[in-house]
Formats: sequence, C-alpha cells, structure tokens
Amino acid sequence: MNIVILAAGMGKRMQSALPKVLHFLAGKPLLSHVIDTARTLSPQKLCVIYGHGGEQVPQLLQAKDLQFAKQEPQLGTGHAVMQAVPHLDDDVPTLILYGDVPLTTAASLQRLLDTAGRDKLGILTVNMDDPTGYGRIVRDGKNGKGNIVRIVEQKDASADERAIREVNTGIIVAPTRQLKTWLTKLSNNNAQGEYYLTDIVAQAVADGVKVVSAQPDHVWETHGVNSKVQLAELERTHQRNIAHALLERGVTLADPARLDVRGSLTCGRDVSIDVGCVFEGNVELADGVRIDAYCVVANTKIGTNVHVRPYSHFENAVVGDDCIIGPFARLRPGTVLAEDVHIGNFVEVKNSEIAAHSKANHLTYVGDSTVGSRVNLGAGTITCNYDGVNKSRTVIEDDVFVGSATQLIAPIRVGRGATLGAGTTLTKDAPADKLTVSRAKQVTVDNWQRPVKKK
Amino acid sequence: MNIVILAAGMGKRMQSALPKVLHFLAGKPLLSHVIDTARTLSPQKLCVIYGHGGEQVPQLLQAKDLQFAKQEPQLGTGHAVMQAVPHLDDDVPTLILYGDVPLTTAASLQRLLDTAGRDKLGILTVNMDDPTGYGRIVRDGKNGKGNIVRIVEQKDASADERAIREVNTGIIVAPTRQLKTWLTKLSNNNAQGEYYLTDIVAQAVADGVKVVSAQPDHVWETHGVNSKVQLAELERTHQRNIAHALLERGVTLADPARLDVRGSLTCGRDVSIDVGCVFEGNVELADGVRIDAYCVVANTKIGTNVHVRPYSHFENAVVGDDCIIGPFARLRPGTVLAEDVHIGNFVEVKNSEIAAHSKANHLTYVGDSTVGSRVNLGAGTITCNYDGVNKSRTVIEDDVFVGSATQLIAPIRVGRGATLGAGTTLTKDAPADKLTVSRAKQVTVDNWQRPVKKK
Amino acid sequence: MNIVILAAGMGKRMQSALPKVLHFLAGKPLLSHVIDTARTLSPQKLCVIYGHGGEQVPQLLQAKDLQFAKQEPQLGTGHAVMQAVPHLDDDVPTLILYGDVPLTTAASLQRLLDTAGRDKLGILTVNMDDPTGYGRIVRDGKNGKGNIVRIVEQKDASADERAIREVNTGIIVAPTRQLKTWLTKLSNNNAQGEYYLTDIVAQAVADGVKVVSAQPDHVWETHGVNSKVQLAELERTHQRNIAHALLERGVTLADPARLDVRGSLTCGRDVSIDVGCVFEGNVELADGVRIDAYCVVANTKIGTNVHVRPYSHFENAVVGDDCIIGPFARLRPGTVLAEDVHIGNFVEVKNSEIAAHSKANHLTYVGDSTVGSRVNLGAGTITCNYDGVNKSRTVIEDDVFVGSATQLIAPIRVGRGATLGAGTTLTKDAPADKLTVSRAKQVTVDNWQRPVKKK
Repeated sequence: MNIVILAAGMGKRMQSALPKVLHFLAGKPLLSHVIDTARTLSPQKLCVIYGHGGEQVPQLLQAKDLQFAKQEPQLGTGHAVMQAVPHLDDDVPTLILYGDVPLTTAASLQRLLDTAGRDKLGILTVNMDDPTGYGRIVRDGKNGKGNIVRIVEQKDASADERAIREVNTGIIVAPTRQLKTWLTKLSNNNAQGEYYLTDIVAQAVADGVKVVSAQPDHVWETHGVNSKVQLAELERTHQRNIAHALLERGVTLADPARLDVRGSLTCGRDVSIDVGCVFEGNVELADGVRIDAYCVVANTKIGTNVHVRPYSHFENAVVGDDCIIGPFARLRPGTVLAEDVHIGNFVEVKNSEIAAHSKANHLTYVGDSTVGSRVNLGAGTITCNYDGVNKSRTVIEDDVFVGSATQLIAPIRVGRGATLGAGTTLTKDAPADKLTVSRAKQVTVDNWQRPVKKK
Repeated sequence: MNIVILAAGMGKRMQSALPKVLHFLAGKPLLSHVIDTARTLSPQKLCVIYGHGGEQVPQLLQAKDLQFAKQEPQLGTGHAVMQAVPHLDDDVPTLILYGDVPLTTAASLQRLLDTAGRDKLGILTVNMDDPTGYGRIVRDGKNGKGNIVRIVEQKDASADERAIREVNTGIIVAPTRQLKTWLTKLSNNNAQGEYYLTDIVAQAVADGVKVVSAQPDHVWETHGVNSKVQLAELERTHQRNIAHALLERGVTLADPARLDVRGSLTCGRDVSIDVGCVFEGNVELADGVRIDAYCVVANTKIGTNVHVRPYSHFENAVVGDDCIIGPFARLRPGTVLAEDVHIGNFVEVKNSEIAAHSKANHLTYVGDSTVGSRVNLGAGTITCNYDGVNKSRTVIEDDVFVGSATQLIAPIRVGRGATLGAGTTLTKDAPADKLTVSRAKQVTVDNWQRPVKKK
Repeated sequence: MNIVILAAGMGKRMQSALPKVLHFLAGKPLLSHVIDTARTLSPQKLCVIYGHGGEQVPQLLQAKDLQFAKQEPQLGTGHAVMQAVPHLDDDVPTLILYGDVPLTTAASLQRLLDTAGRDKLGILTVNMDDPTGYGRIVRDGKNGKGNIVRIVEQKDASADERAIREVNTGIIVAPTRQLKTWLTKLSNNNAQGEYYLTDIVAQAVADGVKVVSAQPDHVWETHGVNSKVQLAELERTHQRNIAHALLERGVTLADPARLDVRGSLTCGRDVSIDVGCVFEGNVELADGVRIDAYCVVANTKIGTNVHVRPYSHFENAVVGDDCIIGPFARLRPGTVLAEDVHIGNFVEVKNSEIAAHSKANHLTYVGDSTVGSRVNLGAGTITCNYDGVNKSRTVIEDDVFVGSATQLIAPIRVGRGATLGAGTTLTKDAPADKLTVSRAKQVTVDNWQRPVKKK
C-alpha cells in the first residue's frame, strides 16, 4: 500500500517554536512514532506531508524510505493529501495517517486494511460515550446498523445523528485511483474555506464504492495531540502501556506509574526495577538485574545479576555481569566494565575500560583510562586526562593498588602489581610490583596559633 | 469590603504542636493562602481571628494590612466573628473566610460578592452528590428553586431536607451593620453550647434581608483541612491545578502528577520539565530551559537554553544562558553563573561568581570565590575558604587552568592565564601566565612489601 | 487453632525462577506476610505446605514455630491440606490460608474464627460486582439469605447461581477431626484430576455441620498474586494503606502516592516526609524530623528535629538529635552520629562514630573512624582505612580542625585541638593543639609554555 502521513499542522495550542509533530513523546517525535508504525506495514510508498515549521520536519526525519511533500498554504486535510498524489502508486490502496496521532497500533491499522481490501473505502472508527464535536458515522438500515452512507459533522448533525456514538477518527484507507479522482472533486465551499478529506466518503457512496469500518483495540490509539495537556496525557497512557507490557513479560516493577521508558527496554528473567527509574534509548538488562530507585539509564547494556543502587546515572555504557554500581555513581559514554566491578558513591567513569574484580568505591574520577583486573582505586583517585587542550590516556595494569587522593597525570602507565601511596601526584610511569609515592615530610609546628575571628 | 478570616481552631486531628492554620500547603501556611487570596480583593479591613496555639499565628504572619483579634475561649463560629466586630467598617459588607480552607479562588469570592451586593446576605454553596453531614440550603417555592429561607443542619433535617444536595460552605458575605446586630442576638442554647454563625441566616430572613447564593467553579475550593489525610488530598489537588496551568501555558511536563511547585514558577517558551522535579520559592525558567528528572530548585533564576541534568539541587542561585549543570550538581546561595558555564557531577558552588565559558566538571568545591572567564577547574579542585573561624575569598582570573586535586587556600589570587599543577596546595598568590606548582618528588621504593592480612 | 498455609504453587505467570510465594511485597516475601499475620493469632500449630521451587521455601523461612510439609506432586488444594494432617491438633479448629494472598488482616481472620467457633465450618466470603469466574456461595431460604448449602463453581453454575455476588475466597476454618475425615473422602474425579478443598463444604452440609461465613473489611484482603501485574497492584494497595495509616497518625506526607515503606516506619510527632522517599527495614523517626525529597532510609534511627536534605541515603545508621544531613549524603552501616552533627554533600560515612557538633560538609570519606566533638573535617578529607588487605581505625579527638584535601592514613590518631594543614598526607599521629602539615614548596616556573593541541 501507499501511506500518507499528514504532518503539516502548526499546533498553535502547543505554544512552541517547534512544529507540533516534532514534539517528543517517550523520547522521540510524535511523527516518528507514526512513521515507525507505518514502516511495520511495509508500504510501497511512505509520504510525509509537512508545512508549518519550514524544513525542520524533512531535515530532522529524512530517510531513504520517506518522501516528503510540502503543503503550503495549508488548506485542509483533503488539500494535504492532494500534495501526495504524485507519489502514490495507483495499483495499491492508500492509507492516511496523522503525524500528531502517535499511538495507533499496527494491529489496528492492519485490521482496517484487511476490512477494506483493495476496492473499498475503509474508515477507522471508535464508539465514544460523549461523541460531541466529532464527525458521526451515519449508516443506513434499521437501527443504523447497515452500510456507512456518510459522515456528518457536529454542526450539521440532526438530533438523531447527534445521538450516534460511532465517530470518525480520520484514519482512512482508499483505493488510490478513485482517491485521486475524488480529491480533484473536493470543494472548499465551506465556512473555513478548506478542502476536507472526509468529503470523499460521499463521493465513494455516490460512485458505488462500499464504505466499511474497523475499530482499534483501544480508544487512545486514535487520540491526537493538540496541546501540552494532551501530550502529557498521551505520554502517561503510553508509559502505562509500556509498564504493563513489562509486567506481563515478568519484570518486577515497584510502581508501574513511576517508570519512564523512552526507547527500547529489553529485560531478561527476574529483573526488578524500583520506583522512579528512567530508561532512554536502547537499554538491555540481563537476567537477575536489579535497578534501585531513581536511576537514569540511557543506551546501556547491563549484565546478569548486576545490582544498581539508587541515584545511578548511565549513558552509553556497558556493564559486565555481577557488577555493583552506586549509589550516586555516574557512568558516562565509553565506559566498559567487565564482570564483578564495583563502582561506588560519587564516582564518575568516562571513556574507560575497567577489567574484572576492580573497584572504585568513593569520590573518584576515571577518565580516558584502561584499568586492569583486581585493581583498587582508593577514595579520591583522579585521572588527570586533560591538560587544557589534549586528552591523554592512563593505563593501570592488573593488581595495582592506588592509594587514596592520588592523581595520575596522563599519559601515564602504572605497572602490574604496583602500589601508589596515598596523596601521590604521579607524573611519571610507576614500575610494576613496587611502591611509588610522592610525599612531603610531615612536620609539626610547635608555636602554632589558631586563626582568630576577624571583625 | 471587610474580610474576616476565622483561624482560631486547634485542629486536634492534625496531631501536631502547630496550630492547624499554620500547617503548610505547597510551601506556605494554609492561612497564608487565604490571606493572599483575600488581599487580591483589596479589602478595607482584613482581620484574622486567632486562638489556639497562642501568639504563633500573629507572630508568624504579622503584616501592616492585617489586624488580629484573639478568640479565647473558642465558643463557635459566631463567637469568632464577634471578636472582629470592633475592626469592621459599617459601610461596606463583611466577607467571612476560613483559615483552613486554602484554595477558594478570588473569582469565586468575587462572584459571591457581586451576587450579594451591598444589602443582601450571600452564601457560597455547593451541590454535593452525598451531602450527608452538611448544612442544607432550604429554599421556598416549588421544587425548592426559590429563595433561601434557612440552613438546616444534618441532625435537624427532615427526610425531604436531607435529600437537598445544595449545602452551605460556611463562606458568607453580609451587610456589616446588620451582621453586627445579628451577632448580638446569637444564642448558644444548643448541644455544643456554641454560637453558630449560620444562625444569622434565619435572622436575615426574619428581617426581610434577601439571602442569595453563588457557587464556586470547583468543589475543592471549599474543602477544609482537618487532618493530615485532608491536607495531603488538598496538596495534590493544588499541585494538579498548578501542573495543569503550566501545561496550558505551553510548558512540557513529563508527568503532571510528579511535579511539585511550592511558590511561584515562571516559565518562558519551550521549557520542559522531566519527572519528579520540585520547585520552591520564586523560580524563573527562561525560554528553552530543560530540567531533567529529580531536580530540586529553590529561589533561582535560570537563563535561556540552560540544560539542568538529573539530581541537581539549587538554592538562591542565578544561572546564565546556555549553562549545562549536573547531574549531581549543587548550587548553593550566592552562586551566580554567567553564560555557558558548565558545572558537573559532585560539584558544589557557594557564594561565588563564575564568569562565562568556565567549567568545573567533577568533584569540586567552589566557595566564596570569584572565577573569571574560560577558567577550567580540574577534578578535585577545592577552595579552602574557611580557617575554622573566618571565611576568605579566592580570586581566579580569566583563562586560568587549575590542575586536578588542587587546593587554593584563601585569601588568594591566581593571575590571569596562570596554570596550577595537579595536586598543588596553593598558599600564596600565583602569578599570571606561569605554571605554579607544589609537588614532592616522585620516589619508587624498591624493596616494598605489600601489607599482609592481619589476624 | 491450627493454621495451614498453602504455598506449594509454581506461579507460572510470574515467569520467574523463584517460587511464587517468595516474591517480595513491600520488602518481604508474600508468604512471610501470611506467616506474620498467622502468628498474631497465636496458633498451636503453624504448618506451611510447600512444593514448587524445591527446598527454597523451608530454607528461607525456617523458624522454630513453623512446620513444613512438602506437597509433591501438586494435586489440588484438598491434596495440599492432606499433607498437613499429621501436624494438626484434633482438639482445635484448623484455619486454611494461602501463601500468595498476603494482605488478609488478623482482624478479618479473627472475625471468621469467632463466627465459626469450634464446631462450625467457616468460609471467608466477599461480595463482588462482577463475580465471574469465582465459586458462588449458594444459600437456602428465600432470596438466598439462608444457610450456606454449597459452593458452586462458575462452570457448573446455573443462570440463577451465576447471579450470586457472594463468592468464596478459599480461606476457611474447620473443626479439625471432621476436616480430616472429609479430606479422606475427597475425590479427584473431575476434569483437572485434582482434589478440591471446597468439596468439603458439601460434606459438612451432609454431616449436619453448620456452614457459616464472615467477610473481611476490604476486598483487597482476599486478593491473590498470580502475575507481576497483580503483584504490582497489591504492592500499591499495600503502600496506599501504609501511607494512609501514617497520615492518620499525624505524619505529614507531601504525596501519599509517592511513599514506599518496606518494613516498619515509626514516626514521632510533627514528622514530615517529602515526595519520593523509600523506607526499608526498621526505621524510627523522632519528633520533628523532616525528610526531604528522594531519600532512601534503611534500618536507621533518626533523632528529634533532624533535617535530612534531598537524595540522602542511609543504611544501618543512628543519627542524633538536631543533625543536618545532605543533600547527597550517604550514611553506611555502623554510622553513629551524636547531636548536631552536619554531614553535607558528597560525603560518605561508614562504621564511624562522630561526636556532637562536628561537621563534614563536602566531598569527604569517613570510614572506620572515631571523630570527637566540634571537629571540622574540611572538603576532600579522606580517611585511608584500607591498605588492600586490612582495615584500620582513625581517631580524631575533640576540637580538631582538618584542613581540606587531607588524607589520614590509618591506624592514626590526631590529638585534641590539633590542626592539620590543607593537602596534608598524615602518616604519623598528630600531636594535640599544634599544626601538623606535609607540604611541598610552592614553586613558579617562569618559562612555562602551555600545552598545544596535538593533531
């Protein structure tokens, strides 16, 4: 099929410099949600109609499988679809989606496609308890159970029609040749002076094309975003769905209402996640991982039986099996920890590999370093990797013991089994198996007077 | 008008040493909410009736425009208003509010005032699905749609009266001369031995004064606080309202249910706030500010396009445009950051100005300091501002590079363009453009034996 | 009475390697909740039927007052109770509970016991709006208000029976001699080939034993856990109940929906707890304690008027009156703080006593130390307690001033009133009242050239 995504609207109520469809839901633009869902349906053509916000939409989202058509000025949904006409393959149906309706599932769309087939006009409809303001689906036959004969807008509806609870979601699929014909016959002879896509329904009926409907599994699949209130509501709906899916797959969540997943979270068996955690990008948690409260984890892979203690912050890191991280630990991009590494409180690791069984438990900065196995980095260890213009590497070989409050001025190497005395500023390589230290003599001043309070 | 606020109650169910009206909702006492709303109505007289908790209420809330009258003992709401009588201007109506009903809006009160005018008795009423326990508004005329004739308490109500859903909120406005007369005629001839303010309704009817009503926009505007359960409920209602108002003004909130604003939060365009943030006092966020999860921000002004990373803590700070702060950063009172300053993890800044483009990215304490532009403070930099009795200032001029783990013993000055070697304890000023360092010789001990495990 | 707890089920939907009854709710296994409730009823015999998961259940929960009986294979609830028969005292009734139904209250069970007495069969029942799927309680007499005559399962129920809203919770109490007889007569002649405990109801009626019912105060008391979704729901129910109980006792909670208590939280008067706090194990908060947002507190006792600032993390600590802790502070096991101690940001304390009025406000590690009164530990103080194999103690006597970035290499003692200069590495004891320092000479290099950018 062809898929056209209408994404030209301004979204004035968003009160933002950003085009509406570029606002983020769960860490990616609304429009990207729709494009990603569309891709799962393997369309021949995937065309995005943009407009407001200039070239931001095609610039941000360009991809080989996407075609962009500009709608300017914006003269209604029918006019928007007209811009896609040159891109549409006549031999397959065309599905119309909306860049601000992010949560429609592929399953619901497939149901609509299956219902419409190649020669019917299909409309995704929902039944609403309060349909006020929506276009009603009018059917013939007794009790309004027959074929769809038209869509009537709120303002034009009779009292009987206003009682209809089935409404149009705007998502339709149409045979493309006819769709092109119908689009040419749309009129903007209405109060808004716009070309309405829904007017093709009447044309289809007139042409003897059968109009059918399908319904999504959930009403929220058809909710659009026109304001920050609606964006927040839909974010919560989406997060609730994600949490529920994780629970169904056996993940233990301390509170499903206090979990935020913005991207893909893959969990092994017996994973538990405490309250308030945030996951961004691609995160993988292996079997037995336990994430404590208020961790923020982005684009990170965490090995089996790792325990992440509260307030830990990860970005683009790899954590080996059986590690213990945190509380108050920060793993920055390029951190690769082997198995059974301990990273403790107020410790930052960046662009460094740390081999198995090593520990940095307190108040430490490890940057641009290669750390061996069974290394102990004492409290207050700092790798001085930056001289103001260049970054250099620190290499600490296996079995090194780094005393507290030691600075290692890179580029530098500490040999296997070396010990560095507490308080050392290491400026030259330290040989293996020996104690290296830089230390001034301890002196006591006999006639010392403590400072007195100045006025 | 005159406004009288009844605030003498003990609030036994609060189970607290603090008088009920001094308990905090959204960062300020319940009574302060009522006083602040009252002030927006510009009353001639604003009189607070206090009692329980001794002088705590007038001591805490004294202000030029407030008069305090003590009610002791507490003999009912009518008795409470009697204490205000000497303060009331006869020529304007008197509005009675409650110190434990914090969320009534000025708009609803104005509606009541407009309805009552200068010569009618006005009652703020609400319709409740379950009115059990509340005083019912009895009206004459068919179907109870006529004039208010009396208020009947639950225990005295007939079956028909109990079916009435319109109830008294206790908030009333009355012509002051008549009110004073009615108060003198109140009786405490009842089970509680108290003087009830609501008894003036019957007197008004008897005197031919018309009794009218107005209704607030929301039922929660009339909710009082008698217990910690109710306090927590009203806190949540209030926070929900604040979040909704921010969304309506275009602020992006990751979760409106996980935002706490205790004071005034002013946001520019395209501000986004992640989950779990707490704002206290006066906070201003300029255009494009992004606040990540779990930040606590008090009395701080943040410039355009600043990115605040998770777990950052601000108190009485000023942050310039384009700064990047956190994660795990703490800005304490007196911090003033110019534009494009970076404050990173485990860094504390206090009573210091840091000029443009400077960075303190790791494990640093900057206190009582003046830091120039383009300064780099290495990991583990500590300004030693306190000698046990005095605090002194550190001055670091433009373009200084401070090596890691350096201590600057104040008072001290580092000249423009100077470099301080890693691990330096700086006791005297460092000249401009040169390298200054204090460093012991690095020594390797050949016959070093590692410690062995003691029993 | 005897109590039998059925805890043999696998819980396939939990998708876990752990037996279902060992999954945690509020910090302890589901089964432990049931056992703890059972114990409050002082049973003569308390027998747990285990099965799936091998010996994990008896190994984890063994206790003097518990008897364990293995059910293998698992052939239904009746079969499970049969395994307990040898342990049951004939002279007292037997109460049957479920290891995956954690929140039944002792009060509800007592009501059932009181209703059944010593010679009746008692069933705990609830009325459900939608009873679909549950066993209905069929009563004789007009309008189904008479005696219980049988329990009919969903699939066997007539249309009339399906309309019955009173359902069986599975919790029953029976006279033990008869129970044993009835169990021997159970048949597995059904679709599942299992022995159903509920079939004893028909036998009781046939034997002329009166069948009675009692109802719990809340439906959630009878909810079982079969999936992570249900576990999360019940966790939230339980936490809501705990928060409500704290509010009722006068604790101020900023948001009852963002509080997690996993164990016992005892609060004095005028305690307030901000959003997002987590309490584990036994925590005691004395009068006037204020806990700010996002603190995690485990097994800790906190004295009167202590203020704990945001993101503070406590494990097995004791905090004296009037202390100020945090933000970003970590108190590890063995921390004992006297009154008026200040522990500030990025400070870790472990296995140390700190006496009154002492301060460690910034970037400090205090481990295995004894710190006197009125001691000031400057920013960046590190006690070097670990030489790679042994841990040694640091003693800092009263009135010591430790300059910033000082390391104390244990075992070591700093005498009363001593001052340590900033940047000192203390390797030998420092005498009282004097200044002790280790410091290299500050040198300025005249012809210094800053590094240049390498390609």
